[in-house]
Amino acid sequence: MSAQPLNIGMIGYGFMGKAHSNAYAKVNHFFPELKQKPVLKAVCARNRDRAETFAETWGYESVETDWRQLIERSDIDAIDICSPNNTHREIALAAAEKGKMILCEKPLARNVAEGEEMVHAVEEAGVPNMVWYNYRRVPAVTLAKQLIDEGRLGKIFHYRAVFLQDWTISADLPQGGEALWRLDIDAAGSGVTGDLLAHCIDTAIWLNGSLDSVTAMTETFIKERKHNLTGKVEKVGIDDACAFLARFRNGSLATFESTRYARGHKALYTFEINGEHASIKWDLHDLHRLEYFDHSDDSAVRGWRSIHVTDSDLPYMKRWWVPGLQIGYEHSFVHQVADFLASLETGEVAGPTFKDALETQMVCEAVLNSATTGQWTKV
Amino acid sequence: MSAQPLNIGMIGYGFMGKAHSNAYAKVNHFFPELKQKPVLKAVCARNRDRAETFAETWGYESVETDWRQLIERSDIDAIDICSPNNTHREIALAAAEKGKMILCEKPLARNVAEGEEMVHAVEEAGVPNMVWYNYRRVPAVTLAKQLIDEGRLGKIFHYRAVFLQDWTISADLPQGGEALWRLDIDAAGSGVTGDLLAHCIDTAIWLNGSLDSVTAMTETFIKERKHNLTGKVEKVGIDDACAFLARFRNGSLATFESTRYARGHKALYTFEINGEHASIKWDLHDLHRLEYFDHSDDSAVRGWRSIHVTDSDLPYMKRWWVPGLQIGYEHSFVHQVADFLASLETGEVAGPTFKDALETQMVCEAVLNSATTGQWTKV
Amino acid sequence: MSAQPLNIGMIGYGFMGKAHSNAYAKVNHFFPELKQKPVLKAVCARNRDRAETFAETWGYESVETDWRQLIERSDIDAIDICSPNNTHREIALAAAEKGKMILCEKPLARNVAEGEEMVHAVEEAGVPNMVWYNYRRVPAVTLAKQLIDEGRLGKIFHYRAVFLQDWTISADLPQGGEALWRLDIDAAGSGVTGDLLAHCIDTAIWLNGSLDSVTAMTETFIKERKHNLTGKVEKVGIDDACAFLARFRNGSLATFESTRYARGHKALYTFEINGEHASIKWDLHDLHRLEYFDHSDDSAVRGWRSIHVTDSDLPYMKRWWVPGLQIGYEHSFVHQVADFLASLETGEVAGPTFKDALETQMVCEAVLNSATTGQWTKV
Amino acid sequence: MSAQPLNIGMIGYGFMGKAHSNAYAKVNHFFPELKQKPVLKAVCARNRDRAETFAETWGYESVETDWRQLIERSDIDAIDICSPNNTHREIALAAAEKGKMILCEKPLARNVAEGEEMVHAVEEAGVPNMVWYNYRRVPAVTLAKQLIDEGRLGKIFHYRAVFLQDWTISADLPQGGEALWRLDIDAAGSGVTGDLLAHCIDTAIWLNGSLDSVTAMTETFIKERKHNLTGKVEKVGIDDACAFLARFRNGSLATFESTRYARGHKALYTFEINGEHASIKWDLHDLHRLEYFDHSDDSAVRGWRSIHVTDSDLPYMKRWWVPGLQIGYEHSFVHQVADFLASLETGEVAGPTFKDALETQMVCEAVLNSATTGQWTKV
Repeated sequence: MSAQPLNIGMIGYGFMGKAHSNAYAKVNHFFPELKQKPVLKAVCARNRDRAETFAETWGYESVETDWRQLIERSDIDAIDICSPNNTHREIALAAAEKGKMILCEKPLARNVAEGEEMVHAVEEAGVPNMVWYNYRRVPAVTLAKQLIDEGRLGKIFHYRAVFLQDWTISADLPQGGEALWRLDIDAAGSGVTGDLLAHCIDTAIWLNGSLDSVTAMTETFIKERKHNLTGKVEKVGIDDACAFLARFRNGSLATFESTRYARGHKALYTFEINGEHASIKWDLHDLHRLEYFDHSDDSAVRGWRSIHVTDSDLPYMKRWWVPGLQIGYEHSFVHQVADFLASLETGEVAGPTFKDALETQMVCEAVLNSATTGQWTKV
Repeated sequence: MSAQPLNIGMIGYGFMGKAHSNAYAKVNHFFPELKQKPVLKAVCARNRDRAETFAETWGYESVETDWRQLIERSDIDAIDICSPNNTHREIALAAAEKGKMILCEKPLARNVAEGEEMVHAVEEAGVPNMVWYNYRRVPAVTLAKQLIDEGRLGKIFHYRAVFLQDWTISADLPQGGEALWRLDIDAAGSGVTGDLLAHCIDTAIWLNGSLDSVTAMTETFIKERKHNLTGKVEKVGIDDACAFLARFRNGSLATFESTRYARGHKALYTFEINGEHASIKWDLHDLHRLEYFDHSDDSAVRGWRSIHVTDSDLPYMKRWWVPGLQIGYEHSFVHQVADFLASLETGEVAGPTFKDALETQMVCEAVLNSATTGQWTKV
Repeated sequence: MSAQPLNIGMIGYGFMGKAHSNAYAKVNHFFPELKQKPVLKAVCARNRDRAETFAETWGYESVETDWRQLIERSDIDAIDICSPNNTHREIALAAAEKGKMILCEKPLARNVAEGEEMVHAVEEAGVPNMVWYNYRRVPAVTLAKQLIDEGRLGKIFHYRAVFLQDWTISADLPQGGEALWRLDIDAAGSGVTGDLLAHCIDTAIWLNGSLDSVTAMTETFIKERKHNLTGKVEKVGIDDACAFLARFRNGSLATFESTRYARGHKALYTFEINGEHASIKWDLHDLHRLEYFDHSDDSAVRGWRSIHVTDSDLPYMKRWWVPGLQIGYEHSFVHQVADFLASLETGEVAGPTFKDALETQMVCEAVLNSATTGQWTKV
Repeated sequence: MSAQPLNIGMIGYGFMGKAHSNAYAKVNHFFPELKQKPVLKAVCARNRDRAETFAETWGYESVETDWRQLIERSDIDAIDICSPNNTHREIALAAAEKGKMILCEKPLARNVAEGEEMVHAVEEAGVPNMVWYNYRRVPAVTLAKQLIDEGRLGKIFHYRAVFLQDWTISADLPQGGEALWRLDIDAAGSGVTGDLLAHCIDTAIWLNGSLDSVTAMTETFIKERKHNLTGKVEKVGIDDACAFLARFRNGSLATFESTRYARGHKALYTFEINGEHASIKWDLHDLHRLEYFDHSDDSAVRGWRSIHVTDSDLPYMKRWWVPGLQIGYEHSFVHQVADFLASLETGEVAGPTFKDALETQMVCEAVLNSATTGQWTKV
């Protein structure tokens, strides 16, 4: 095994910066056969002090305060974009131009136009690229994909997904700035649609194919909040909640909903898929379980099965502990890095790529448009 | 306690005939203070043999084969309509004219026009009337109503309900006739919208007030089925599945969905309500539980509470057994009869009345219209 | 169908009197093929006023205040003993002598000596007899029996059962008298052992065969309580809690526990059985579900199955509603009466008989003895 | 922050070697305030090839094949003992003599005599010492401790714990050797008692104080298995299953059970504690949840609460992600290392120490003795 360093330049040090850094730090411990070894070369953020603290904690070798400097560095192989959504396009275009691999936080962009430019840029440059829709690689979700691909569900009639949170109910919560850019329409591009529904849509397309058309509604329950950047009370531009009906191209029907006003739910991403022969349910709050119902079971003992996805023959689980011992949220990122590193060896693309993520962006945009027009909208 | 007989004439002897008969037979055992005592005077159905068997089983004193005869009888106080939806209007109009009380199975009618005639008829006649939206009187649902009315949830942001079944997935299932009239558009008026979503809508209006507008989609997965009345393969006219987005007048958002193609679900009626301070969930498959989350709990011990609704201080439960011992589906009908009987003593109306049920019918019609036009539709 | 009345004389009108009366009243509605029809001929209790109220509520034709009078009556076919445990022996002996069938509440007696006399009496008299261990006929429990008998579990390694309540934690609760005779050692014979563990033991023997030996501990947390009959604070003689280890004759190991000091549990009777190939779990708080794990499932989709025991091909369920609609506690009594009535037609005994219940009594006595001696004790 | 290296010498590279190494690698990322930084100085195992592979994967700087050599090294501060139970005593005694800190896998030893020597050795040497009873530091378990210490449960009546597995049911499974030393009585000292019940006992003592006396039974279902070291079929000396009743010194009653023959359970460690005012339940299969019942809740909304232990104000959770995103098994080790490192700074002991673990050993020995004698046995 001849190790090969993959030098990472990370932009941003927030929640996602931490999740990604942890994945880079752990991946070779649990996937020792990988030749590529991420090296935490530099972290970049405007606030040098915080960047240095972050670098010290995680072992980044250096710090940059201007992402353009980072991209110029020849000792960086891959740029990891963890900064707010309004920075994705510009950084990605510049990084692609410099021939850097790009790992970009989701959503890909604030809108389809930005996303198209980004896809064009990475395809033009021919650089490996990936978007951090991490939930595909929760083992239970990967298992769902496997069961569907094996045909166990048969024709799929229904898909339903929600992503429910409750952290913005207080009217006293401000918007904008480093901690709360997700509430600022300029930085985020949208509210729950890009932040939460984008996850649901990525998984849905992966599991059940493309969506054809949607009809949506959005709501902003708190109309004005103090803005951290201006200090003034300003209109809230994001969607606090969004729900939509959809038809997939394969004929199945769907409902999707997301909100930050569902008291009692912290990060309740659930999906359920009903097929002719079998059904599947999953819930991020118990992410190590997959619920499965198989109509072909003997009727005396037919029921929803709660699969504790910890056995070593289930996706990714031979990497971890022993049956019965669960993993958590952060492991999905480790799996994604592992698959990305493997793709560099094998040449097999590890999705979702920028192009895959663009399709999710198109659905988000159709949803937001439909919420404005009140019309069914083609994706 | 001077008992007073309430002579019941039942039309129909199917599943609902059984559920109602059981309620009449049990109600005075568990609500001994009621002065009114239902007497099973007559059951009416076209098939005399089956009607007689039913009468013998349940103790009906007589049998009729023509509902007009039943309505003519002066020894009948109340008509219970359990026959298919396409008979509701005609029977109700005739019964009201004769001054009979009417207890009508849901949905009230096949459409708003029929429903309006029925409401007009009972109001004109001044007869007590009720529609069997029985789920209001599942103790956990009644408790939900109580908690909302006490203001525990605060402003309500979200309402979501589904009613999922899986019994019509096989393409070999025929439509129509006595057993399968629910699949026949002429007899039923609609598919899951009137059969299942009507329940969800009745509960929703009761708990959260009127709906303002909807946008919907419907689907008929199996386009043709053999018709039991004609013996020929015929177009299926009903909706196999229906989903809609809605806005309540109080500003809360809603999603509703129903289908008979959700493998693994027999009668999964669930609703969830998210308020500013607290949230509630309920599931017909475990109807004796109510899930409740209260944000005002001390954060160290905050979580969804699973209330086992069996304690004697919870709605209706002092009537039954001891804490920990659950009741089932049929008890909701007993409660509804008990409340109806009490209303005859007190004069306080026991809902849902025909008029209440007409509002549900209006929502159903708006939903079906929206599914055709693709437009948001006012209720 | 030529109906044949079975005239019931009920002794006692408490909680169990209500449960049994309901069963007699309902059984022919749901088991219409039965020729035997219970007739509520008389209820007997010392307090005439209350007995008359009870008779009026349930439709008993007459009232007795002395059980010896009741037993003398030639118009009574069957005696149902619902009075406190200290009356079982004397009533049963007298009733058997008069040739009455006997349906006796559990536990059979206060101790083995009493029980042996009772078994001797009914066998001598040759009268049909049954003890109300009703949980055998909760459909999910009956299904468990069926799965075990089919060999699906294979060799059984482990059995564990608990019956947890929390209603006697307050030291202010008195003991004795009509409402609280279960806390009075003279009336009850024992505490949780005879009241709750007896249920667990009856089920266990039925499902897994005889127990061989036990070692036990008991505790009385509140040592003295006011006695309702004397008005004085007196020593509490019953066991508040009891736990025991056991070995079955078939080699499997068991743990049993019961208490009335398990805060949060009203009537949490659960059992779990682990076999070589499969395992089963059941919980009275959700009595309409059976949990089942089958190791022979494909490993990708192996998990505990939650069987919603409502389909019509599952035990007793074709009698009730449609799939997805649950029944409750009281239905187990209806099933037991139905099986008893059928046994009168077919001659096949419907257990548990007095003799079956005596075996449970022997285990209880071994448990209580072991708790005193601290030794392993043969049953 | 002046980092201070803590040089680790690890003995063993199996499952626990991996879990500990991961903890050392991660701890400073998530507890950046710690001054002590573990350095993976050396791993020691007899098989040099495997040890080198392990060292390469985890970044150990060197490899030893003789633990005595490791202990001799002056560049090692702390010895981590992950080798089979029969090596603990000898290594610990030697390491203590050399003044090394010791972190020892559980159980402390094969029996009390060995354990006493070990406690004596570390106390004599005055070296920091700890045993890896990691479940204390699953956040939900730590929260349970906090709730009990706050007095929320009041007087505790009942404690029950099980640890159920199913991996040794096949008679074809051999015993002994590197992979299966846990089935070899010489290497392990006992079966489930030391391997699994020891965890339950450690938690129980921590949460509810010392045990006073026990009565136990054990069983070895498969009497003979091929031995990997001899190649011959040999008697199995370990306990496959063990259950015991116990009394705590505080008066509460307990049941404990462990087995490797509970089909359907991989690592089902559960405990439940019933107090006068409140109760608590926990389950390793969903380790991120704590179930809590508080009797002081308003009766209308009283029920078991499922606390999703992910909020940042709950034990350890501010270290990780955001509310709703769960952690897994391995994090308990990270927390234990963090607390150990902090203890080196503060001087406050981070339990369980060798002495704490000796008490668990004493309970295990009393249990095994009782299973032999059939007598209640004092701890």
